Amino acid sequence: MAKYSEMSKEQLLAEHESLLEQYNALKAKGLNLDMSRGKPSADQLNLSDDMLTNIPTLKDVFSETGLDTRNYGVLEGLPECRKFFSDLLEVPVENIIIGGNASLRVMFDYITQCLLPNALGAGWLASGKPVKFLCPCPGYDRHFSILEYYGVEMLPIDMEDDGPNMAQVTEAIQDEQVKGMFCVPKYSNPTGCTYSDEKVKALAAMKPAADDFRVIWDNAYLVHDLVEPEQGDKLLNIFPEALKYGNEDLFIEVCSTSKITFSGAGISAIAASEKNIAAIKARIGKQFISNDKINQLRHIRFLKDIPTLMAHMAKHREIMAPKFKAVDEKFTEGFSECGIAVWTKPKGGYFINLDVMEGTAKRTVALCAEAGVVLTGAGAPFPYGKDPKDCNIRVAPSFPPVEELKTCADILVISAKLAATEKLLAK
Amino acid sequence: MAKYSEMSKEQLLAEHESLLEQYNALKAKGLNLDMSRGKPSADQLNLSDDMLTNIPTLKDVFSETGLDTRNYGVLEGLPECRKFFSDLLEVPVENIIIGGNASLRVMFDYITQCLLPNALGAGWLASGKPVKFLCPCPGYDRHFSILEYYGVEMLPIDMEDDGPNMAQVTEAIQDEQVKGMFCVPKYSNPTGCTYSDEKVKALAAMKPAADDFRVIWDNAYLVHDLVEPEQGDKLLNIFPEALKYGNEDLFIEVCSTSKITFSGAGISAIAASEKNIAAIKARIGKQFISNDKINQLRHIRFLKDIPTLMAHMAKHREIMAPKFKAVDEKFTEGFSECGIAVWTKPKGGYFINLDVMEGTAKRTVALCAEAGVVLTGAGAPFPYGKDPKDCNIRVAPSFPPVEELKTCADILVISAKLAATEKLLAK
Repeated sequence: MAKYSEMSKEQLLAEHESLLEQYNALKAKGLNLDMSRGKPSADQLNLSDDMLTNIPTLKDVFSETGLDTRNYGVLEGLPECRKFFSDLLEVPVENIIIGGNASLRVMFDYITQCLLPNALGAGWLASGKPVKFLCPCPGYDRHFSILEYYGVEMLPIDMEDDGPNMAQVTEAIQDEQVKGMFCVPKYSNPTGCTYSDEKVKALAAMKPAADDFRVIWDNAYLVHDLVEPEQGDKLLNIFPEALKYGNEDLFIEVCSTSKITFSGAGISAIAASEKNIAAIKARIGKQFISNDKINQLRHIRFLKDIPTLMAHMAKHREIMAPKFKAVDEKFTEGFSECGIAVWTKPKGGYFINLDVMEGTAKRTVALCAEAGVVLTGAGAPFPYGKDPKDCNIRVAPSFPPVEELKTCADILVISAKLAATEKLLAK
Repeated sequence: MAKYSEMSKEQLLAEHESLLEQYNALKAKGLNLDMSRGKPSADQLNLSDDMLTNIPTLKDVFSETGLDTRNYGVLEGLPECRKFFSDLLEVPVENIIIGGNASLRVMFDYITQCLLPNALGAGWLASGKPVKFLCPCPGYDRHFSILEYYGVEMLPIDMEDDGPNMAQVTEAIQDEQVKGMFCVPKYSNPTGCTYSDEKVKALAAMKPAADDFRVIWDNAYLVHDLVEPEQGDKLLNIFPEALKYGNEDLFIEVCSTSKITFSGAGISAIAASEKNIAAIKARIGKQFISNDKINQLRHIRFLKDIPTLMAHMAKHREIMAPKFKAVDEKFTEGFSECGIAVWTKPKGGYFINLDVMEGTAKRTVALCAEAGVVLTGAGAPFPYGKDPKDCNIRVAPSFPPVEELKTCADILVISAKLAATEKLLAK
């Protein structure tokens, strides 16, 4: 069998007919499968079930410092939790604040704080001019939703194999109204790439025109390797690099245990410069009295330290790696000859980025939906949901069991090929 | 012994000398006591310890609807929790959203949403004119801190025995820049008064000039009686009243379990009109994926229903009532003759409001601090911390054990009398 691009109309028609037959056969099964979000599977959640009962009695509710975690207080979070994230992120304890169950909330609230007058200044909205933000894409759709909610103008930046296109970044930040940038620097959502040392250094050295520019450094997948950590990607710590250029105030790092313990009941952390931490505390000191410290205590008693965390992540890997392998095998088997698709083979994270034939992503996702497989909406990883090439599909293998996943992948492959033959025949 | 106001200079001097002697004797004990905040005592927190272990195994993590509470999703909170708060607040389930561990955060985030462009309009800041808010006072200092953080101008409204002075409210809301009002309608912080039906109806009927006016109806102490609930205060449900005047969108009700289960690890709820709920969901759908549903499940399994809740609150009452009684007895004993102080005898809530001789509250709190008793800062219950009469002291009896509390009260009484004699002698 040849590449579709090299097929004669007759060959294409024949291929189209046979695909349609396979598609209808699968569609007839009346499936109802979901590959749309990066949700951990029940097996993964079960790995943390000790956390449900690791504060068994009222003698156990006290923190290291003897503090009663049930009562009010301790705005920054328990010292032992701050120490844990300090070790994990390689940032001093004083630069860490523990957040609630969602790093998304930490980011939303920080962006909100930056828009309004705050401890650092008049806020991004003060000038009355439009606020703009850099969005490396494909990127994380929920980052873009925050900006869209606030009417912040999103400027797409090309995502390369080793991070954002720095020429585009350097040019864009000459505009004083460009106030920030979203980054998922390790095992990026959805491409799975990790920023190279070169790009981390270039970002650390950047000189934006706006003196209140902020990079949200969303380190969501920092310990989420799909291979042995030694073989996994390494991300350079942004803060020591930024410090070399006096740029430590430019970076706000966040992470969470949503994909380590319980997705809906984890804890998050924010790491930032002394100045930024002080500004954040000035706000959260008015916003709440403390986050849930009992849950912080459950976490630190369960995750303990970095070696214990890494041993725990190895169990996640045992569940996740076969799922990524299964999808990759299906894609290889289905796409190798026809040459209509390329996809990433990430060493970590939660997604595979599939690029199908230009102009067929929306159609492919629609065909999958018709056949009972829900995918992330085509274009979601782009600002305003607009994929200029209509070729990007975010594949999330984590949630379905392997056998279901194989069926999803089959349907996705056939749908992509069907969309491609349709398009080629329509020419 | 006579009233201080009727004493001769000689009598006052003698009284001052004897007070100073008693004060120094107590000061010499080098105490370190805290009566500053409405914190539940450890005994109270112990009442909810079953909640630490009431999700013992991974078979128990599922909600009524079979949903895995450990994973992402369910923005509005578990149906069974919404039902519980619907029964508690007598508001339909659809009008309830479950929040995180702090109703303060729910209020901060809602005020923030109102300031910025949102689903309901351009936001309070849009006009560029100063935003103003009505603050019945004495009131809750943390409400005022939210407004101060955002530079919202606070307009004091006199708090009467049955709620805010409605003549002042009615006049103030003629100003289009007056965008809202904070209310603690039951067992108000700090006076302990409950709004009369008459005042609730007047508020429900109000016609503010601003079409985006909002009343934050902070029902923090709704089941926190210090007497048998039958003998306790009754608060009229604001929503049916507001509905009569088409004013249902004016009211945002919040409450939490912070003083029912665990102060730092409770759950909160917001009740609002269909229109307001939709606007809040438009924001929180971008802010987070869900609150901690495992903690919601712990709560509903522990609190179950309203009868179970009320039985639980009776246990709180057994611990709290004697503390309020002890303070009241000390005040009666110490203040009855000298006639320099009046205080409230609330049927519920967390505070006693003590008014000492005009111009002596700050001095009294300072004297207490010197003698090792920390009180809420004088003036805290007023906007910008400014008590025009410098007479108000918020007394929080919940946290210290009864014996400690008695010592605190003794020191407070003597300090207040000492401050009074100082002032009278200085004339």
